[in-house]
Amino acid sequence: MAKTIVALSTPPGIGGIAVIRLSGDKAFEIVDCIFHGKTKISDSQSHTIHYGKVMRNGEIVDTVTVSVFRNPHSYTGEDVAEINCHGGMIVASEIIELCVEQGAELAKPGEFTRRAFINGKLDLSQVEAVADIIHSTTKLASQTAARQLIGNFRKRLDEITINLMSIASLLELELDFADEDIELVEKQQIAEKLKQVIEYCEDLSRSHKSAEILRNGFYVGIAGFPNSGKSTLFNTLLQKHRAIVSPQPGTTRDYIEESLYINDMHIRLVDTAGIRKSDDMIEVEGVRLVDQVLQQADLILIINDATKGLDHSDELSRGIKEKHKDKEIIIVQNKIDLLDEKNVQGISAKHNQGIEKLKEMIYEKAKVSFSKDMDVLVNQRQAILLKQAAEILKNALYSFEHNLDNTVISIDIREAAEKLGEITGKKWSEDVLNNIFSRFCIGK
Amino acid sequence: MAKTIVALSTPPGIGGIAVIRLSGDKAFEIVDCIFHGKTKISDSQSHTIHYGKVMRNGEIVDTVTVSVFRNPHSYTGEDVAEINCHGGMIVASEIIELCVEQGAELAKPGEFTRRAFINGKLDLSQVEAVADIIHSTTKLASQTAARQLIGNFRKRLDEITINLMSIASLLELELDFADEDIELVEKQQIAEKLKQVIEYCEDLSRSHKSAEILRNGFYVGIAGFPNSGKSTLFNTLLQKHRAIVSPQPGTTRDYIEESLYINDMHIRLVDTAGIRKSDDMIEVEGVRLVDQVLQQADLILIINDATKGLDHSDELSRGIKEKHKDKEIIIVQNKIDLLDEKNVQGISAKHNQGIEKLKEMIYEKAKVSFSKDMDVLVNQRQAILLKQAAEILKNALYSFEHNLDNTVISIDIREAAEKLGEITGKKWSEDVLNNIFSRFCIGK
Repeated sequence: MAKTIVALSTPPGIGGIAVIRLSGDKAFEIVDCIFHGKTKISDSQSHTIHYGKVMRNGEIVDTVTVSVFRNPHSYTGEDVAEINCHGGMIVASEIIELCVEQGAELAKPGEFTRRAFINGKLDLSQVEAVADIIHSTTKLASQTAARQLIGNFRKRLDEITINLMSIASLLELELDFADEDIELVEKQQIAEKLKQVIEYCEDLSRSHKSAEILRNGFYVGIAGFPNSGKSTLFNTLLQKHRAIVSPQPGTTRDYIEESLYINDMHIRLVDTAGIRKSDDMIEVEGVRLVDQVLQQADLILIINDATKGLDHSDELSRGIKEKHKDKEIIIVQNKIDLLDEKNVQGISAKHNQGIEKLKEMIYEKAKVSFSKDMDVLVNQRQAILLKQAAEILKNALYSFEHNLDNTVISIDIREAAEKLGEITGKKWSEDVLNNIFSRFCIGK
Repeated sequence: MAKTIVALSTPPGIGGIAVIRLSGDKAFEIVDCIFHGKTKISDSQSHTIHYGKVMRNGEIVDTVTVSVFRNPHSYTGEDVAEINCHGGMIVASEIIELCVEQGAELAKPGEFTRRAFINGKLDLSQVEAVADIIHSTTKLASQTAARQLIGNFRKRLDEITINLMSIASLLELELDFADEDIELVEKQQIAEKLKQVIEYCEDLSRSHKSAEILRNGFYVGIAGFPNSGKSTLFNTLLQKHRAIVSPQPGTTRDYIEESLYINDMHIRLVDTAGIRKSDDMIEVEGVRLVDQVLQQADLILIINDATKGLDHSDELSRGIKEKHKDKEIIIVQNKIDLLDEKNVQGISAKHNQGIEKLKEMIYEKAKVSFSKDMDVLVNQRQAILLKQAAEILKNALYSFEHNLDNTVISIDIREAAEKLGEITGKKWSEDVLNNIFSRFCIGK
């Protein structure tokens, strides 16, 4: 019997309503101890709402409604009661306290969803979608996660698994008839199917990078010599939009990061300290820090003070390109309003000139990194499993094409299917679950 | 027909659940446009919950539950639908957007509760209790507001009003029989009743001060010469407790305020800048600011550096007492660990000596300011009305005791009853409502 857990499921803070969720065998019993309405919650039908008072020692605590969800027709698959009380700091915590006094335990982060998984209400890919929806910062990310939530990813994986299993079975069956030289397996067809699955797994595994951008934003680092206008550009870009300040926890360092939305694309803009030139060498002051930012960046903007020459930052740019080979880099000519030559492509960060164009360029770079129609926000765990499955299947395909022993091939195929099964949680370990639920907030 | 309004009713931020509330004639119709479940919300019974998907152009937005409350059995007295979706920044705002596209209007702060009042679901004293519950910072404040919420205050006022009206009626009736010299009215009894009501109104009006302390905390100002140890004491008091940082909006001034809880009593501790002595005069630098803090304080702690003499701050203390005549003042001898004399009552803020005792003193001072059993958190609006009613009734009592014309007396009594009726909103103006609802958050 699962212990009954309780938690505040809405964000803390001032608001009209707070929702306290209880789940477990004694959920209704516990609520009946503190709730006084027309009917007892234990006697109420599923999916009904009841108005009444929460009392402590004959004293009113709040007027509330209680929603009843009977096992298995609830989020967790257990008996669930949700108490909707007034918002604020006090009432909800008092009601939770009362529930604990009646025997409920405080829920750990993600514990409701963990129970939903354990009770077969959600597979692991759906569990991960729940976290992604809650933490998403753009509609696109939220939409993709919602598709994953309703099981699109699981359905696809299930199809593939069934396919793989039937191939494995055929191969095993053929073994039984090995002496009779009957070929049950249409070789060409099987090779084709394996190739398709390999391609699907590899594509999806690769989409992890795009999913990360969708999840965490497209990371744009601004670099350049001091006084090239980096910070002015940073502010100009942000002032035109509602900037959301996102202080980096634990880092009070030499760079600032802010969020910016271009056409619902979440851009994380990072302003770095200026890179100094000393003697003839390009010596980078605080280079480690700047490098660290650029290392994470999806796109690097190198800001060049055009009044010092259009090629003034070329050497710096080459240096950065060399260090960060796989990065997209754009050299931005700044202060073009001060040039005599009027045909230079560039911007004036100070006078808000060319900024819209630059934003379009950033947006285009961000856009190519993912397609709009993903059914899943592949995370690292999933990407690794997909990659492993693909590798194993490649092995199987090689064996198959070289007419190796069916036993070996079928073992490989079954192993790949198992890897895919781990994505939805057909096989799981406490470690995997703990890792997944560490991303969750309390009350979910 | 009231327009249908929509708002997020839970606090913004990361959390498991967000609740979107719709109220108005088209609430169910609008939800049916975006919600896809087994049954239509318009066809559903009151107080039932429905699971399904919110869709936009065939695309899933989120899986949600919808709670149905049919007019008049809802918070507002109108048709109300509550959509419980996943928490976070995106989903809820997208669903609200969808509702607006289907014809809902964004609710103004407190608009749901305003409708509850207009539709007779809550009286004004209950409306004010809702705001008090949400904003309360201690259990005691929340409990008192909850008592007010379930109508204890209104019931008491209704009783009194009925009493006053019957007295007025008797007085008027007597007029009709004036020629016949029949005395219908038991004089002694009426005078007694009037006195009781006057006393009740005056007591309650006076309790406004206590209610403010309960609502906003007991305000303790720390003053003293520089280096007397004010800030050390401030920190010592806070470190021993979970200090909640409450930055004063709009004030980045020369004092810091933090909250501290002693036995569930909310203490607002304010550290002021040191007051400087120059020449022989006590000249106060930044005096206006310190004065402003002390003016608001319920209790002033004057910190004296005992090593400079136990009477070192006496002159300062006299000055403060003169300016703030009605304030409670405690002189706290600090740094007593450095004295040779060991019998001095006081503290060492640095060495955490005598701090518990000091806290007890603060608590005692705070405690006397209110009783535990109030049924109402009297606010300024109510206090003024109560005072006015008491004054009018005193007038009536005087007239009554001096055998003045019954007409005059009964007019007074009816006017007093009307004042009391304004507390619960039997009579109201847009201005009064606007003022009350300005304290509300959106979504309530």
